[in-house]
Amino acid sequence: MSTFGQYFRVTTYGESHCRSVGCIVDGCPPGMELTEEDIQPQMNRRRPGQSSITTPRNEKDRVAIQSGTEFGVTLGTPIGLVVLNEDQRPKDYGNQTMDLYPRPSHADWTYLEKYGVKASSGGGRSSARETIGRVAAGAIAEKYLKLAYGVEITAFVSSVGNVHLFPPSPEHPAPSTNPAFLSLLERIDRDTVDRFLPVRCPDEKVSRQMEEYIAGFKEREDSIGGTVTCVIRHAPSGLGEPCFDKLEAMLAHAMLSIPATKGFEIGSGFSGCEIPGSVHNDPFVPAPPVDDSSTASTGPNSPGAARVGLPRPRLTTKTNYSGGIQGGISNGAPIYFRVAFKPPATIGRAQTTATYDGSAEGVLAAKGRHDPCVVPRAVPIVEAMAALVLMDAVLAQQARHTAKSLLPPLRQTIPSRKPAGNGVSENVKNL
Amino acid sequence: MSTFGQYFRVTTYGESHCRSVGCIVDGCPPGMELTEEDIQPQMNRRRPGQSSITTPRNEKDRVAIQSGTEFGVTLGTPIGLVVLNEDQRPKDYGNQTMDLYPRPSHADWTYLEKYGVKASSGGGRSSARETIGRVAAGAIAEKYLKLAYGVEITAFVSSVGNVHLFPPSPEHPAPSTNPAFLSLLERIDRDTVDRFLPVRCPDEKVSRQMEEYIAGFKEREDSIGGTVTCVIRHAPSGLGEPCFDKLEAMLAHAMLSIPATKGFEIGSGFSGCEIPGSVHNDPFVPAPPVDDSSTASTGPNSPGAARVGLPRPRLTTKTNYSGGIQGGISNGAPIYFRVAFKPPATIGRAQTTATYDGSAEGVLAAKGRHDPCVVPRAVPIVEAMAALVLMDAVLAQQARHTAKSLLPPLRQTIPSRKPAGNGVSENVKNL
Amino acid sequence: MSTFGQYFRVTTYGESHCRSVGCIVDGCPPGMELTEEDIQPQMNRRRPGQSSITTPRNEKDRVAIQSGTEFGVTLGTPIGLVVLNEDQRPKDYGNQTMDLYPRPSHADWTYLEKYGVKASSGGGRSSARETIGRVAAGAIAEKYLKLAYGVEITAFVSSVGNVHLFPPSPEHPAPSTNPAFLSLLERIDRDTVDRFLPVRCPDEKVSRQMEEYIAGFKEREDSIGGTVTCVIRHAPSGLGEPCFDKLEAMLAHAMLSIPATKGFEIGSGFSGCEIPGSVHNDPFVPAPPVDDSSTASTGPNSPGAARVGLPRPRLTTKTNYSGGIQGGISNGAPIYFRVAFKPPATIGRAQTTATYDGSAEGVLAAKGRHDPCVVPRAVPIVEAMAALVLMDAVLAQQARHTAKSLLPPLRQTIPSRKPAGNGVSENVKNL
Amino acid sequence: MSTFGQYFRVTTYGESHCRSVGCIVDGCPPGMELTEEDIQPQMNRRRPGQSSITTPRNEKDRVAIQSGTEFGVTLGTPIGLVVLNEDQRPKDYGNQTMDLYPRPSHADWTYLEKYGVKASSGGGRSSARETIGRVAAGAIAEKYLKLAYGVEITAFVSSVGNVHLFPPSPEHPAPSTNPAFLSLLERIDRDTVDRFLPVRCPDEKVSRQMEEYIAGFKEREDSIGGTVTCVIRHAPSGLGEPCFDKLEAMLAHAMLSIPATKGFEIGSGFSGCEIPGSVHNDPFVPAPPVDDSSTASTGPNSPGAARVGLPRPRLTTKTNYSGGIQGGISNGAPIYFRVAFKPPATIGRAQTTATYDGSAEGVLAAKGRHDPCVVPRAVPIVEAMAALVLMDAVLAQQARHTAKSLLPPLRQTIPSRKPAGNGVSENVKNL
Repeated sequence: MSTFGQYFRVTTYGESHCRSVGCIVDGCPPGMELTEEDIQPQMNRRRPGQSSITTPRNEKDRVAIQSGTEFGVTLGTPIGLVVLNEDQRPKDYGNQTMDLYPRPSHADWTYLEKYGVKASSGGGRSSARETIGRVAAGAIAEKYLKLAYGVEITAFVSSVGNVHLFPPSPEHPAPSTNPAFLSLLERIDRDTVDRFLPVRCPDEKVSRQMEEYIAGFKEREDSIGGTVTCVIRHAPSGLGEPCFDKLEAMLAHAMLSIPATKGFEIGSGFSGCEIPGSVHNDPFVPAPPVDDSSTASTGPNSPGAARVGLPRPRLTTKTNYSGGIQGGISNGAPIYFRVAFKPPATIGRAQTTATYDGSAEGVLAAKGRHDPCVVPRAVPIVEAMAALVLMDAVLAQQARHTAKSLLPPLRQTIPSRKPAGNGVSENVKNL
Repeated sequence: MSTFGQYFRVTTYGESHCRSVGCIVDGCPPGMELTEEDIQPQMNRRRPGQSSITTPRNEKDRVAIQSGTEFGVTLGTPIGLVVLNEDQRPKDYGNQTMDLYPRPSHADWTYLEKYGVKASSGGGRSSARETIGRVAAGAIAEKYLKLAYGVEITAFVSSVGNVHLFPPSPEHPAPSTNPAFLSLLERIDRDTVDRFLPVRCPDEKVSRQMEEYIAGFKEREDSIGGTVTCVIRHAPSGLGEPCFDKLEAMLAHAMLSIPATKGFEIGSGFSGCEIPGSVHNDPFVPAPPVDDSSTASTGPNSPGAARVGLPRPRLTTKTNYSGGIQGGISNGAPIYFRVAFKPPATIGRAQTTATYDGSAEGVLAAKGRHDPCVVPRAVPIVEAMAALVLMDAVLAQQARHTAKSLLPPLRQTIPSRKPAGNGVSENVKNL
Repeated sequence: MSTFGQYFRVTTYGESHCRSVGCIVDGCPPGMELTEEDIQPQMNRRRPGQSSITTPRNEKDRVAIQSGTEFGVTLGTPIGLVVLNEDQRPKDYGNQTMDLYPRPSHADWTYLEKYGVKASSGGGRSSARETIGRVAAGAIAEKYLKLAYGVEITAFVSSVGNVHLFPPSPEHPAPSTNPAFLSLLERIDRDTVDRFLPVRCPDEKVSRQMEEYIAGFKEREDSIGGTVTCVIRHAPSGLGEPCFDKLEAMLAHAMLSIPATKGFEIGSGFSGCEIPGSVHNDPFVPAPPVDDSSTASTGPNSPGAARVGLPRPRLTTKTNYSGGIQGGISNGAPIYFRVAFKPPATIGRAQTTATYDGSAEGVLAAKGRHDPCVVPRAVPIVEAMAALVLMDAVLAQQARHTAKSLLPPLRQTIPSRKPAGNGVSENVKNL
Repeated sequence: MSTFGQYFRVTTYGESHCRSVGCIVDGCPPGMELTEEDIQPQMNRRRPGQSSITTPRNEKDRVAIQSGTEFGVTLGTPIGLVVLNEDQRPKDYGNQTMDLYPRPSHADWTYLEKYGVKASSGGGRSSARETIGRVAAGAIAEKYLKLAYGVEITAFVSSVGNVHLFPPSPEHPAPSTNPAFLSLLERIDRDTVDRFLPVRCPDEKVSRQMEEYIAGFKEREDSIGGTVTCVIRHAPSGLGEPCFDKLEAMLAHAMLSIPATKGFEIGSGFSGCEIPGSVHNDPFVPAPPVDDSSTASTGPNSPGAARVGLPRPRLTTKTNYSGGIQGGISNGAPIYFRVAFKPPATIGRAQTTATYDGSAEGVLAAKGRHDPCVVPRAVPIVEAMAALVLMDAVLAQQARHTAKSLLPPLRQTIPSRKPAGNGVSENVKNL
């Protein structure tokens, strides 16, 4: 089904050559100011044709709110969002090589296996165009998260091919241990990221290196993959469901649902497998006091944050190998993760393939212009999906927290007196 | 919510110190032979205490079917599954260090932040014991998948710390390009994996190396992580939903919901980001004919397969960087993926932490015995979650396929005639 | 949430004064011919202004398919449906009595209680306009049901105020025992119903009586309610889930979700409470043979039916107090039910009410024209909701049936030999 | 699927002859005191054998909490509930008439049509025993509703056959207009209802009449139906979702999912169809002030209510034809509805039927004892299902309300100034 989320539920529709693409956002809190101007910026960041290294096609992709708001305020009812397709004509069958041969590593073949009907565009919903609805919905989620909690979500390109922003070194085999990386997570924002267009890697030198690297693939009519790293700051603690819907599980689901993704890692990720537990465990320390006199209009010290229903955590961690999530639940520290994108399947070079019916082999080569690398444009899509996951988790936790707060107070269930000495606990449990 | 799946829906309950743990499996097809004997083997493989390098505690973990079968045959109604907890007494509050200090990188702290109530076992549902219900449900899913399609799911340990079964080399930076790895995927089975107990890494030499490596961490009262690789053979093509519920997204969700996981990658994964598209694209080739005269009792050539509703694909791919999934949908090739597990948080070494209320810092050290490395025991859990994902996808696709088959035949929508020459397609689409 | 259905999932959006209303239909089988022409007829039947006794406003209500089809064939992907609102301007606040006083028995007050935000149209989504998306989605479901099973769904007006099509009599206290009613269920169709416009009660005399009756209420600036009866013929047996989602429970849910409804009864309904079990039980009899040589293009004897995956039942019932559903599951007999609609809340007569803040009382009277009775226009909405319920149940049952068919055959579980004599069973069970 | 609810999600398992029946309750707020003693009373009220007119079988039906609580307090995690079946042996096939002939108006036949597998108990999950899990879950929901809002839910028998507690009269064709009925709704409670055991109709004379009436059917080896009326007091306003999941739609769904139900009506119900709008509309009046100095331990004036997150409504209605729900959303007035139950299908009298395969006709007669009328025992089941619906709606509305409260305040959207005169509104809207 084309639906994501339980509390903030997004349902998308549309493929490449139909009238429009869009979505319905159900569960947006009522009473939030919202117009197209809140949504369009991320639509523009997603749009193709932003520079010489992305595809030059310049669609307008103007989003139009159909319902769910009045006088610029959300009503709490479903928000319909529509973006017109400019080129609506499906292509005729039978007169093109592409109709006979599935493109290698595209969805042409698997879509036909799944549906038994072939859309003229081949992989139908697997088109990057389907992500428009997600980005629009994500922008709405983000607005709420920022207003209510000062949440900030920023993604950036962390590698293209073998060019890494933080390459592994003997001292820092993984970024999680690299102070430069951790410090970047504390301050990076979208304006900074976009200053490094077209690649969106926030480092002058590495960015330029990546640009040249991609240009080489373009010249060779080839393509290359890369990774996007995303950080979520000021997320409340307590987000995520304990069992199947752990916060990192929902993030992994969301990220692997983006076209062309191949992997996901949270916090220390795969490199965390090689770090001893004695180093990898994040020691708890008392959280620094929050500056309630702040006059910031957003952020954790803003008046917005003062209305917050979910309490601020009293502890934080000294290190953050966990990536802000422990036992599937956020602990208030920055949540960060990395997503792998494969090289785009569409390349100018000729490739061998076989007819749909397996009766013949042939050669395909894409004409026209196409992205040699998708990671720069993937940045707002990663942010949007992160926002959808977080929004759903926030609403779920708010609901639980409120439900509990209406119950009569209980006898003390958590001891708070300081123990006599530094104890040594016995840890016996069912496993 | 503690529910997984739409068509084959598993709801689990239970934590470390309650009466029992278990689950309800809703949506199991009626008319399948099923008794506890089909489920217990995977329960035993999951059980702690299987060797000197896992925790020695030997629980019985006998599963009892409560409902949904009669005379050893499924009725199609919900199957209740219960496993008693042997040690049911929750521990008293207030007299232990562990009640005052959250254990670093455990779920103690985040659970309290989430629920405002502290279970005596700390992280409640984050206990590995919660996975019992999943493994039981997975065994039921597996039985159906094997009977209906000959599906085979096998997981094994592919690395422990920096000891890798297929270490990166200049020639094969990633396993996906390594013929030894691909050949292993074709033939590995559970009996073979279990011959390499206690580590479950199917290579004599590497397995022994891992065992010694883990023993070192145990001696130092430390812990270490690792990775598990899983392969699914004979999955039908057409599985997975195009947009949010792509097959790899559901697998990622499932895997990251297992305690202690930090990452997931499908097919070429993170290393696929560094391979040019011209190499990474998997060329289509006609599928080899299936031997219908086979008398195998399971597998793709078995009589079971002859009843199959989902047709066999006419194409396959020459390489398999895609990991058996393209555009979010299975293509019939082996599906393989890798899951990262962090080092266990419970270690004998003393660690600094702070009291729940942030008023004091302290030192914790776990007494007793505990797993220095979880990957060997994680193997059946990975298999179970893979089975749950696949089962759900199979039921969804069967439903769609059947629904379509009842419609009147359409005019030809897919051209099948051979084109005059090797064409060059123009690839223009909305992006 | 604004979503209905699990397998055939409809999500609607829109209120009275926004840009458009519409829905996304997810789960429509691929390969079905579908254009706007399949949907528009039911839209037209729902439209206001069909006669002097309904509201004269004549909107175009043209539906436009946005996605999910190509060349007039469904792709299996989400179908976006949009109907423009002609009058999009929300009304200004503060200058109208209606903004200060909630209208009695409208949703103005409860919507404000729910959302804390007041839409200019008062009850926002409670508008009859919201049903447009349902009717459009229902038309798609109906098309599939007819093509695959020859299902026929027809609703008609069975009472207006105290004017009943089948008034209770000493001989037939309830329609269920009235041969004229049962015979009508066997043959009524939409063309016949529409011959009795504007009331849609399929009886010359009663229809005219109702028309005059409604006209009287109109004259008095008052309103009146009524009931709609609906019959579903040729539904396969086996539809409906045993426990919470019994077929009648889903129908009740669907019907009570239509604005202005107050009651639902299946089969004998409330009058069935007064009939002894010995009469009310429906005896089983062998089903009449189906004429497979029929050349009808639809219906249970059509070639369409020959493709049917769900088998034809071998039994039927002599009477049909059950209304075609037993134990929550369809038995193949006609399914019939009745829905109660209250008198429209908007009337020309002055009514007392209070300001939203409770500070003052006042008097409201509706200007303009409005429906004195909604049941004629409710007919296509009842049909649409019935189609959505049935479609979901059909897809669920097809899925289960197919899943079972792929399992190896079992030993005989149902005895079929004829017993020696007419037995007397002992009926001991847990209750 | 055997699951009910989105926020407070109940999944049940079990049939007549399996090991146990039970459920998993997911979404219960943490921090609520809960033991088996909170659940058992409703289990006992549901139990068969409470008097000479119900079946004499006296099962223990002791509920055991498996998980989700510790030291008598909910943890917020899934609560497993198990009730053992005392007679677990499924009956052998082939030696009984019942195995060859489906019982008329039972689920034997439709279950076989649905699953293709026949349980020894015939209708498997359609057994009244399946309702055990619902009643247990309902008791948990009720406890929360009472603690947080002082909600009171009471059901009682309102008719048996043609013996009515409030029979239609010329003056009061429907109970909704009968002051005696409305006054009963204000004060009826469970203790009072149970003083009228075995029938549970709260009127000395009518109750005795019903008892004799039922006894007559028992003597004749026949059965009879009846209706149950239920009232929910002190429900907060704002409950219910506007479109498909209107509060009355969810109640209808819940009630029609109870075995043997045939109809549902909210407020004025079917008789409301015959009342003019000018009478049926419920005028708004300012709500009476709430006595905050009350020392009641529950109820709307209790300290519990003082913690309430959902605000108290400032208006109420003079009459209550609406049954406490307008536009699908609760308005704070008592919610009342009526449910129709058919006569039990199992009767001692001989009945004709046909073999499963349609090859022969035969005669069935139930041996042993059985309920001639189910409504007395249905009372706690109706209450349980009402509690599940309300709990889900309360959690949804709390979530929305909290989410909105965290947003910055908006400019005034609802005018509150008193208008100059008694206005006359123009009511133009899209229909």
